[in-house]
Amino acid sequence: MSSVSKPGPASGSSALELAMRSAIAVSEGVRGLTSPNPPVGCMIVDARGKPVGFGGTSPPGQAHAEVVALRMAGTAARGGTAFVTLEPCAHHGRTPPCADALLEAGIAQVYYAVDDPFPAAAGGAQRLRDAGVTVHSGLLAEEVRTGPLRAWLHYARTGRPHVTWKFASTVDGRISAEDGTSRWISSPESRAEVHALRLKVDAVIVGTGTVLADDPQLTTRPPANEPAMRQPLRVVVGERDIPVGARVLDDAAETVHLRTRDPHQVLATLAERGVVDVLLEGGSRLAGAFWESGLIDRALVYMAPMLLGAGTPVLDGIGVGTIGDALPLAFESATMIGPDVRISAVPARD
Amino acid sequence: MSSVSKPGPASGSSALELAMRSAIAVSEGVRGLTSPNPPVGCMIVDARGKPVGFGGTSPPGQAHAEVVALRMAGTAARGGTAFVTLEPCAHHGRTPPCADALLEAGIAQVYYAVDDPFPAAAGGAQRLRDAGVTVHSGLLAEEVRTGPLRAWLHYARTGRPHVTWKFASTVDGRISAEDGTSRWISSPESRAEVHALRLKVDAVIVGTGTVLADDPQLTTRPPANEPAMRQPLRVVVGERDIPVGARVLDDAAETVHLRTRDPHQVLATLAERGVVDVLLEGGSRLAGAFWESGLIDRALVYMAPMLLGAGTPVLDGIGVGTIGDALPLAFESATMIGPDVRISAVPARD
Ligand SMILES: NC(=O)c1ccc[n+]([C@@H]2O[C@H](COP(=O)([O-])OP(=O)(O)OC[C@H]3O[C@@H](n4cnc5c(N)ncnc54)[C@H](OP(=O)(O)O)[C@@H]3O)[C@@H](O)[C@H]2O)c1
Ligand SMILES: NC(=O)c1ccc[n+]([C@@H]2O[C@H](COP(=O)([O-])OP(=O)(O)OC[C@H]3O[C@@H](n4cnc5c(N)ncnc54)[C@H](OP(=O)(O)O)[C@@H]3O)[C@@H](O)[C@H]2O)c1
Repeated sequence: MSSVSKPGPASGSSALELAMRSAIAVSEGVRGLTSPNPPVGCMIVDARGKPVGFGGTSPPGQAHAEVVALRMAGTAARGGTAFVTLEPCAHHGRTPPCADALLEAGIAQVYYAVDDPFPAAAGGAQRLRDAGVTVHSGLLAEEVRTGPLRAWLHYARTGRPHVTWKFASTVDGRISAEDGTSRWISSPESRAEVHALRLKVDAVIVGTGTVLADDPQLTTRPPANEPAMRQPLRVVVGERDIPVGARVLDDAAETVHLRTRDPHQVLATLAERGVVDVLLEGGSRLAGAFWESGLIDRALVYMAPMLLGAGTPVLDGIGVGTIGDALPLAFESATMIGPDVRISAVPARD
Repeated sequence: MSSVSKPGPASGSSALELAMRSAIAVSEGVRGLTSPNPPVGCMIVDARGKPVGFGGTSPPGQAHAEVVALRMAGTAARGGTAFVTLEPCAHHGRTPPCADALLEAGIAQVYYAVDDPFPAAAGGAQRLRDAGVTVHSGLLAEEVRTGPLRAWLHYARTGRPHVTWKFASTVDGRISAEDGTSRWISSPESRAEVHALRLKVDAVIVGTGTVLADDPQLTTRPPANEPAMRQPLRVVVGERDIPVGARVLDDAAETVHLRTRDPHQVLATLAERGVVDVLLEGGSRLAGAFWESGLIDRALVYMAPMLLGAGTPVLDGIGVGTIGDALPLAFESATMIGPDVRISAVPARD
């Protein structure tokens, strides 16, 4: 690492990481509020290493993270260091380039985690260097990549929303009993986590089958009587009609019904609407169709401590007949959550 | 805790626990070699707190743990303290009472973890107290109860072997693909663990369906070219014949074929043979029958990172039709093991 400018935060990687971790926390805090823009976090420390400002991306069209943080820091930013989760942008979008804002404020040093993958926005680091700012990239990049910017980076790379397939199953791999009942398979603790997840995504998708079987509301219900800050878009996929009076049609949140059976079509329509991060909430047939199309980016299992011995299987029909053709995944984690086990897995890269 | 005798191990619970932990390790070390006797561990420290002997239960008819440890300690046991995972026995079985052996050796203090549940054997603590020995019970009792003595305590309480239902499944709850193939669902790491498990149990049970589909050998194959110390009894359950030439009939281990469909009958027959700890290794129909009979004491899932979307479900037919009637479990742990996730659960106590 170069160290041209003398003043800056206390040296030693732990002080640097601490500052970047604050930026990551802010980034996580605004996740779900910024799409189609990335939920960036920024932390400013002054020339002696004292934190003087922080900020996250504001809703679309409003200030980016760096600008929010610089406003808080004011003149204390001069000669200071900025920690940003994403490379500061160099392009005029709906707001002026963040690189320019950092220069204007007199920032001497910038640490950012992840390079901007959009050619149009990239070049911020170079512009800062050209103006004499010391720029370091890659600090805690992996944490940012797999954390708050995971969905947006996927979207930036592929043009498609990031899809998390979430389901609640029994130990024997059933998502509902023989008579179709499935309510409260998972515990209050897991359900609370799912509501928090819904608050962070842009859309929740189910098939008409789930609407007809369960009549779910698909909103995020915060604890106690607090109102939810926002609701994800509710998306129902399938050719059948949604019954009049279905809870998914209430006015608690916006709902779109996509009368298609093509998962690619579904994601293309959502991408056009600026949807970056999606929760696919079953059932087994729609999930099967998404897997067959190669459109699932993560599986999130809430396994409940019970056995059914019959009922709807987790997944239906992905065209695999023999064990050698099984769809390979890689586990990310397995964690006890209340009485349940939460398991996260991603498609295996070859 | 009383403290009549002055000399003894260094006071403070951590020194006591350290000594009991050694006894537990010895206990675990002989697990699988002692049935129908309990795999007890014993640690002797002299009057100044120095370890002078340890021992585990020998195979049936030979010396118990206390006697093995006292032999090693010799005269150094006089005035010393014994740490034993189970209350020393007071009855004449095939060997003389351990309580008497401790008295003869001049042991001044005894810490044991778990009371002997057999009325015939119990009373050891009282006999020691009557002879002036200071006796403490309950030290690390929970670790012993859920650890090396788990199966034996169950057997002592119920008269039935402890049954662990073990299976390897995909994330979507399949134990084999549509064409019946299932080999290598789990990783080398998980398979090595299962081989180590087989070394610790007295018997491995499968249904004729699994023999016909997979032709498993059901032995424990230690790593490298080391020979296995012992093999569990192989048990095949079901009315159909085992094909001539089936690997389960080779001479690597003993095999019994129980031509019954009654799980109670299976366990009664095994209990008569001194079987205390059993691994039920599928398939889904035999597992269903054991669950229906209420005879499973633990579920051990090796979940592999893959999806099938079709194939044999984990469990078949336990007579549950609606979610409210699901069979309740409680998770004990969820752990990454190599690329797999291992999940342990027990039937929920109400
Ligand atoms: N435990 C959980 O986490 C959980 C979550 C959700 C659901 N469930 C349970 O799952 C059951 C419902 O399962 P399900 O499979 O019927 O629900 P689903 O997957 O939500 O809906 C299936 C429907 O999706 C539509 N669809 C759209 N594209 C498709 C495609 N490419 N291929 C196939 N279908 C497509 C079809 O509807 P059209 O015929 O209208 O085109 C199809 O009938 C219920 O019992 C519910 O309780 C459980
Ligand atoms: N991944 C894994 O961990 C794993 C482990 C084992 C098996 N498997 C897979 O499971 C499949 C075999 O499943 P399966 O269900 O056929 O095997 P199974 O449960 O081992 O055997 C079923 C047979 O057990 C006998 N049985 C005894 N008592 C019974 C009762 N009360 N109720 C019903 N049957 C009873 C019956 O045989 P009779 O007709 O002879 O009486 C029945 O046909 C294979 O594809 C195999 O690969 C996977």
